[in-house]
Amino acid sequence: MMNNSGASNGDSNVYEKQVEGHDHCENGDGSDNGVTLGIDGGTTSTVCVCIPFFPSSKTLPNPLPILGRAVSGCSNHNSVGETAARDTLEEVMAEALSKSGSDWSAVRAVCLGVSGVNHPTDQERILNWLREIFPGHVKLYVQNDAVAALSSGTMGKLHGCVLIAGTGCISYGFAEDGREARASGAGPVLGDWGSGYGIAAKALTAVIRAHDGRGPRTMLTNKILKALGLSSPDELIGWTYADPSWARIAALVPEVVSCAEACDQVATKILVDAVQDLALSVKAVVQRLGLCGEDGNGSFPVVMVGGVLEANRSWDIGKEVMKYVQDLFPGARPIRPQVEPAVGAALLAWNFLVKESTEKCHS
Amino acid sequence: MMNNSGASNGDSNVYEKQVEGHDHCENGDGSDNGVTLGIDGGTTSTVCVCIPFFPSSKTLPNPLPILGRAVSGCSNHNSVGETAARDTLEEVMAEALSKSGSDWSAVRAVCLGVSGVNHPTDQERILNWLREIFPGHVKLYVQNDAVAALSSGTMGKLHGCVLIAGTGCISYGFAEDGREARASGAGPVLGDWGSGYGIAAKALTAVIRAHDGRGPRTMLTNKILKALGLSSPDELIGWTYADPSWARIAALVPEVVSCAEACDQVATKILVDAVQDLALSVKAVVQRLGLCGEDGNGSFPVVMVGGVLEANRSWDIGKEVMKYVQDLFPGARPIRPQVEPAVGAALLAWNFLVKESTEKCHS
Repeated sequence: MMNNSGASNGDSNVYEKQVEGHDHCENGDGSDNGVTLGIDGGTTSTVCVCIPFFPSSKTLPNPLPILGRAVSGCSNHNSVGETAARDTLEEVMAEALSKSGSDWSAVRAVCLGVSGVNHPTDQERILNWLREIFPGHVKLYVQNDAVAALSSGTMGKLHGCVLIAGTGCISYGFAEDGREARASGAGPVLGDWGSGYGIAAKALTAVIRAHDGRGPRTMLTNKILKALGLSSPDELIGWTYADPSWARIAALVPEVVSCAEACDQVATKILVDAVQDLALSVKAVVQRLGLCGEDGNGSFPVVMVGGVLEANRSWDIGKEVMKYVQDLFPGARPIRPQVEPAVGAALLAWNFLVKESTEKCHS
Repeated sequence: MMNNSGASNGDSNVYEKQVEGHDHCENGDGSDNGVTLGIDGGTTSTVCVCIPFFPSSKTLPNPLPILGRAVSGCSNHNSVGETAARDTLEEVMAEALSKSGSDWSAVRAVCLGVSGVNHPTDQERILNWLREIFPGHVKLYVQNDAVAALSSGTMGKLHGCVLIAGTGCISYGFAEDGREARASGAGPVLGDWGSGYGIAAKALTAVIRAHDGRGPRTMLTNKILKALGLSSPDELIGWTYADPSWARIAALVPEVVSCAEACDQVATKILVDAVQDLALSVKAVVQRLGLCGEDGNGSFPVVMVGGVLEANRSWDIGKEVMKYVQDLFPGARPIRPQVEPAVGAALLAWNFLVKESTEKCHS
């Protein structure tokens, strides 16, 4: 729902390099005490990282050592069904452990940030899968993948708002007192118009409307037909039916951005509307949680994640969203995470452990 | 794509009664010369009727005798795949023939109006399926199902514009000189917002937006949750993922109409926008074909088909669309077909045969 493959900017390579920098010989800093698995389960792919288990009393080393990293397919049970989602998760964890030179018995904590967790029953179901795999002493946490993405920007702290816009989009936030809120992230049927899928679907619609006489002519027609190797807008109908995958549609976002950069009015309007939709999602979360304080000027982080926000083009969707948000909330501090969401998930596990041990001390 | 199950008004019962009125003992008026099959293949169901074969020289009897009628599932190859679509067609034809007390050898002409025919290659593929079933002398015609729907309003004559709004929507038209044009009918990804699916998807989106703080409160929330037996808008996400069928979404149109009738502003705006979208589809076709003549006042039929247009409620979408169209084109004459689209398809076969024999006479 919220993976960042919509308009990929090659992030996975960046993260691969982070792994290479910390290979097995550097494991002395904690892996003897076992490992923590952090998983980012999106609609397009699932990433698992293995980091050393840090006792809750310890501060985190910087940079964080990544012992192993594995990538697999979709683990959103809404998209691929329960059995396939579960198999994907087990597979990707096994591979990350194997790459770390570790095994299941070393695992002390697991945190899964997975798309499709919209309700406590979703959480409970996935916890049950994990409980069948791991013995009772292993700490298990399941969160919406947006929570792991937030944590990737705040290095484990659950405070502020994250905005993800990749194939899907969602805004998710936490107040200091633990209250949480979300907006969007409901999928294409339920109108996630700021997502990569939403932007590209509107562009395809504009091509059809120009073709059948309902809408103005637009550069999007030639640009998109060329990108897809089609000769007429009529063929778009068969093309969309042939494969209903959202990522395939969302992959057209760069074409829309190119047309907007060339001042095509239809493409520009699509992007401006997407910016407003994304900013509105952040606004809804910030207001419900009161993140901006009573005077509206309070400081809070806004973590920006996903290909749509990271495109780094001259028409920069992420920058425009942040401008809009800071107009509303001057204290909003944009954060571009330096680690990937799977590492955010692993940091989340550490954060939860710290919290639990603090609560134990006070009880 | 354009079946009329969106907001069903029990039409199938009406058509069943027409069949009952013409049972086997009345077949004297032409079935000795063989039969014609007319098929309406929509996204939700496929209907086949068997009528007597009328030589092209004869005028049609009124009312038209229906010898047999059969209903089956979806035959849109885009939705269910080629094999299933083909099997459905063969099955529904066999059943209609059997109910007529007839068999394959009696078939003289077949006309298939099927959704998903958007390109000559689609037409050719389906013609190939039919050619494998029928011997060479049988006349075979394949059209977009909108063409059969138009014919159901004009009793076989290909002139004017048809607007279908059921689960999907499309506008399709023919000029007297045979030129044709269409608008919409591209499916949900490509923005058929006037369709039953489009209306209901916007209503579901409005419920999510109200829930997460991005949109105004609306009566749609309670109305739709009650209709679906859900307790919170959060559960809508799982509900939409659980079954991606468009008809299931489109079935919520009556709830939207009820809320608009109770003056809910959000529901009213959704319906007003749908009316504009549908009218714009008609406008695009009329203008491209010049159906309204040079002065814009020329007379032409507008055939209105599908549950969204036939709902017959105090908030009447079909009536509003026609008002809008007649404001633009005073000569637009609304027609509510008295026969179903499958009969329209059968009449189309007759019309094509008349044309071919006329052309033969002149050549």
